[in-house]
Amino acid sequence: MSKSVNVAIIGSGVVGSAFISQLNGLKTAIKYNVVYLAKTSSEALYSSDYQSVDLSSYKTSATKPTLGLDELLKFLQGAKKATILVDNTSNASIADYYPTFIKAGISIATPNKKAFSSDLKTWNEIFANSAVPGAGLVAHEATVGAGLPIIGPLRDLITTGDKVDKIEGIFSGTLSYIFNEFSTTEKSDVKFSDVVKVAKKLGYTEPDPRDDLNGLDVARKVTILARISGFEVESPTSFPVESLIPKELEGIESAAEFLEKLPNYDADIQKIKDEAFAENKTLRFVGQVDFKANKVSVGIGKYPFDHPFSALKGSDNVISIKTERYPNPLIVQGAGAGSEVTAHGVLADTIKIAERIAN
Amino acid sequence: MSKSVNVAIIGSGVVGSAFISQLNGLKTAIKYNVVYLAKTSSEALYSSDYQSVDLSSYKTSATKPTLGLDELLKFLQGAKKATILVDNTSNASIADYYPTFIKAGISIATPNKKAFSSDLKTWNEIFANSAVPGAGLVAHEATVGAGLPIIGPLRDLITTGDKVDKIEGIFSGTLSYIFNEFSTTEKSDVKFSDVVKVAKKLGYTEPDPRDDLNGLDVARKVTILARISGFEVESPTSFPVESLIPKELEGIESAAEFLEKLPNYDADIQKIKDEAFAENKTLRFVGQVDFKANKVSVGIGKYPFDHPFSALKGSDNVISIKTERYPNPLIVQGAGAGSEVTAHGVLADTIKIAERIAN
Ligand SMILES: NC(=O)c1ccc[n+]([C@@H]2O[C@H](COP(=O)([O-])OP(=O)(O)OC[C@H]3O[C@@H](n4cnc5c(N)ncnc54)[C@H](OP(=O)(O)O)[C@@H]3O)[C@@H](O)[C@H]2O)c1
Ligand SMILES: NC(=O)c1ccc[n+]([C@@H]2O[C@H](COP(=O)([O-])OP(=O)(O)OC[C@H]3O[C@@H](n4cnc5c(N)ncnc54)[C@H](OP(=O)(O)O)[C@@H]3O)[C@@H](O)[C@H]2O)c1
Repeated sequence: MSKSVNVAIIGSGVVGSAFISQLNGLKTAIKYNVVYLAKTSSEALYSSDYQSVDLSSYKTSATKPTLGLDELLKFLQGAKKATILVDNTSNASIADYYPTFIKAGISIATPNKKAFSSDLKTWNEIFANSAVPGAGLVAHEATVGAGLPIIGPLRDLITTGDKVDKIEGIFSGTLSYIFNEFSTTEKSDVKFSDVVKVAKKLGYTEPDPRDDLNGLDVARKVTILARISGFEVESPTSFPVESLIPKELEGIESAAEFLEKLPNYDADIQKIKDEAFAENKTLRFVGQVDFKANKVSVGIGKYPFDHPFSALKGSDNVISIKTERYPNPLIVQGAGAGSEVTAHGVLADTIKIAERIAN
Repeated sequence: MSKSVNVAIIGSGVVGSAFISQLNGLKTAIKYNVVYLAKTSSEALYSSDYQSVDLSSYKTSATKPTLGLDELLKFLQGAKKATILVDNTSNASIADYYPTFIKAGISIATPNKKAFSSDLKTWNEIFANSAVPGAGLVAHEATVGAGLPIIGPLRDLITTGDKVDKIEGIFSGTLSYIFNEFSTTEKSDVKFSDVVKVAKKLGYTEPDPRDDLNGLDVARKVTILARISGFEVESPTSFPVESLIPKELEGIESAAEFLEKLPNYDADIQKIKDEAFAENKTLRFVGQVDFKANKVSVGIGKYPFDHPFSALKGSDNVISIKTERYPNPLIVQGAGAGSEVTAHGVLADTIKIAERIAN
């Protein structure tokens, strides 16, 4: 008499492999039947009779070529069973296909920001399609702050009638680390370019640090939070995003050359830091959704030494949500990246969907 | 074709009336049919044909005597419909009846700590009954930290396989306010008894402040968190709870006399505060669940000036959850009491249950 749900997993990278291992260890009443597992963009595990993939041995099992998205949809529909698609990639084509999956009754759980932070049309299509009875559900807690409870709690506030006044946060682990090291409550002469180099050496940055420094990842997360709060953001490039890449270095080809020239611009950001320090403030790279000012933005902010953002350590994320009900903001803080915490965010979403649709 | 759920609401006090108003304003696909509303322990609104109570006019509508719990159960079962009981009281008899409701397929959403923080037997009965297919579901986010996302996220971590190392937090708005005022990062000579008096004047304490100072409310919340984390706490009095009531004043009858004599003991707690200050630490009244030390406890703790607990303001609650996945703890902070935030916590739970059972 126990309920079950079909699951299709795409991707077994950093997050995907942790997800698979956590799912394999799950002890719940609902049975999760993994009918499709795309290990990479080319190799997948599945069988035409929907036998559950063995998650203990998937790494070494013989694979078939992955199914295209149309084929995958047909395959999943053929099982005539409640189904959750778990997209653990950062692939844009899969994201673009969400509305089709959802319309067909297949639910989505994902840490992939693409679908939720691109054009507003896609966002609207996803949630409009999902609102229809019989359609698939959508959950994407891990798209902001990884496994931290942010999107769920924010949605709960909005649904129950609260109104956001201001959201403010540090949403990039990389930029959190860089600014926590660069701008402290104690006088320090550490150079911005040196901190960036250390961050790269520690593996905290993307292979090309400019992919962190351009602020776009933060802009995508802020786009998602703004939309949930009711701010109709057209795209992550439709509001001011301050890039930390000096204009003159934007055109440079290699990351190595970029890092070599970055020290030439240390004086500019050092000046901003010294000015802030003179006011007993630190610099932090923040995203903001400000309803009073009717403004969404991403860039460097200054925070008093006794503000929670100034006390941030390591590469933690933090979000401050000020609403009608929480004039003294609701604050959530902790690791905003990492395989295990991200996978747990995706798995918790998967479980919540399963609890609603398993049959 | 839209789904609906029956709802029975007990209590329309501080939290109950805010809950009713938020529920009345809800715009969701699911229809919430309030078939029973007990405004107080004596007056209720309901009709034998399960007509929905008008939540806009319930304050002035003609009432009937409330139903006893056996009668209420029979009444709700008679509708043959998915049903959620929302208990917005602090009543122990209703709490004792949860296992019976749940067994009968009726779900519970509540901010009432009683059932979850009394003897372990009741806790086990509730969750064992709820695990049976067809049984009612249980949600109680607002029993700790009011509307703050604590219980849900903690359960998500445990379910997906994380292991708690240490939970530490300030779970009483009253004691948060008292210690935030009494023990600051700047030298201050404010007297403990004076802060208690101000807190009482501001309406932050129970009518008799000893009901806050005895630490029992914190012990109940810690009991709940410990049990969710897998610590089998027998009862809220089965572990060390430090009371802030001087031994000699325990037997005193009136709150007035207690407050009059409290200044005689200021020197004792002042000494502890001065010692902490000399180590650059503040005093905070905390609850702890410590797996390494195999210990649950409630009492005064000392925190370095740059620790998040030292920076707490007003009457905010804060919780720090250190786990295998979050060695740098996950921190949630914000108002842990108040009608609107508590009601939103209960309503969000109600919605989550409805999304699973509405038919
Ligand atoms: N890592 C974190 O801490 C973190 C935190 C929050 C959110 N996220 C998000 O989580 C997602 C996954 O991140 P990750 O760090 O796990 O990335 P990753 O290590 O690069 O893994 C991505 C995986 O997806 C596979 N893939 C890509 N396109 C595919 C396709 N069309 N079909 C099947 N498989 C495909 C890749 O295989 P190929 O090698 O064949 O391309 C790879 O196995 C991203 O959206 C990321 O933004 C990650
Ligand atoms: N207030 C907060 O900020 C807060 C925060 C977190 C959690 N909570 C919890 O929320 C619950 C409600 O708190 P509250 O502040 O709203 O208390 P309250 O203002 O005292 O309201 C309690 C209500 O319940 C009614 N009631 C009691 N027993 C009843 C019964 N057997 N049948 C029907 N109605 C009954 C009371 O009516 P009578 O007058 O007839 O007794 C009253 O209307 C408590 O469990 C509390 O611990 C409160």
